[in-house]
Amino acid sequence: MSVKRAKIRLFVNAGLGAAQSVPLERAQAHYLFGVMRLVLGDQVALFNGCDGEWTASVTEASKRGGVLSCVEQACPQQNPPDLWLMFAPIKKARTDFIVEKAAEMGAARIMPVQTKYTNAERIRQDRLQAHAVEAAEQCGGTFVPDVADLQKLDAVLRDWPQDRQIMLCDETLAGACQTLKAQDAKKWAILIGPEGGFAPDELTRLRAMPCVSSVSLGPRILRADTAAVAAMTLWQSELGDWN
Amino acid sequence: MSVKRAKIRLFVNAGLGAAQSVPLERAQAHYLFGVMRLVLGDQVALFNGCDGEWTASVTEASKRGGVLSCVEQACPQQNPPDLWLMFAPIKKARTDFIVEKAAEMGAARIMPVQTKYTNAERIRQDRLQAHAVEAAEQCGGTFVPDVADLQKLDAVLRDWPQDRQIMLCDETLAGACQTLKAQDAKKWAILIGPEGGFAPDELTRLRAMPCVSSVSLGPRILRADTAAVAAMTLWQSELGDWN
Repeated sequence: MSVKRAKIRLFVNAGLGAAQSVPLERAQAHYLFGVMRLVLGDQVALFNGCDGEWTASVTEASKRGGVLSCVEQACPQQNPPDLWLMFAPIKKARTDFIVEKAAEMGAARIMPVQTKYTNAERIRQDRLQAHAVEAAEQCGGTFVPDVADLQKLDAVLRDWPQDRQIMLCDETLAGACQTLKAQDAKKWAILIGPEGGFAPDELTRLRAMPCVSSVSLGPRILRADTAAVAAMTLWQSELGDWN
Repeated sequence: MSVKRAKIRLFVNAGLGAAQSVPLERAQAHYLFGVMRLVLGDQVALFNGCDGEWTASVTEASKRGGVLSCVEQACPQQNPPDLWLMFAPIKKARTDFIVEKAAEMGAARIMPVQTKYTNAERIRQDRLQAHAVEAAEQCGGTFVPDVADLQKLDAVLRDWPQDRQIMLCDETLAGACQTLKAQDAKKWAILIGPEGGFAPDELTRLRAMPCVSSVSLGPRILRADTAAVAAMTLWQSELGDWN
């Protein structure tokens, strides 16, 4: 039986497999049956971050709940490369944007970090995680990056895993985008500074770490959200799964 | 005399040069004196898109007008490479975003194009141009890309200048980011399709044009705004002024 790829994509916290039943949460039932007006037998694409995408059909529907039944796997699980995106949170809309773009472009983990020149004292981790889920639903991905809670950059660097390289986006470098390919590593993290740049002692510390490669993002000053997308593009096209 | 780089940056429609006086428009005077509370003698950075950045000081100030006087050139004019960004307009916030990013990342001209699958029938060219000015003010650039009015893609391709290459972001290409360096050309345009992709006959026509190079932006589906930033990054790092 050939199943057309369903248009509505939904992330669920449940195992997916042949003939598997998936109970819906109240908000999901409201969306599918209240907003999108799906009825019994209609199809939805489901993914859970590890079992690929499954076509499922509606077998029970009410405004407060419902059950979907997996019909067929529409595509296998596709995980991004082992790339972390670390960035200093900025204004709400632009932080949301960075999380959306990281999910879309294939980061495995999103880590907001507090640098010396970061204004944000806290983030809404749950809201950002929901944002990453929504971006994965929209962009057709089967993976949802984990959004970590805000951590101090100092603490992150103190416990830094020795086998992970850091691509440091350094706006004090003019021109000369250092090639990353020389590093024969699989695990990477991109680090984007806050709008005011890194503090001098942060830069000194980072540059002294053997796992750090500094790259320039061109001669113009980029906003942090632009820098995040540009850095992920350079990394994906040099070392990631774009080639 | 050494002049510190002023913090407020303003685009003006006036010539800039040593001892040049620059009359302010009403909205600019309101911003400088009403909102930012500048007083006589305070300094502002001015640029006009062709004379570099000038430090100017306030010599007349009222809420309805005022005059600035150029003191010293703070940096020379810096133009981006000869790159056009063509894209199919999408929802307002994301179209604004594309214009902002094009100004920030160094495009010389922004061209909204109407493809077969583009919903937008019109754009507010004046609003988008103002948005490009604002992005240049924010990102420290001295150049403001020209925003063209919405044109049909068919018409744009019919009159296409023979000496300008097109980098076509083709989401039907999986993997294999074709290298652009083989083209020994200085003039380029990036073409980003609408969210639904190009129509089959548009793709056929584009691929048959000798000036077109198709590139892939990786294995995931990117939103049009992400694709615009990613494409400009690839182009700038391969052929532009990032190296």
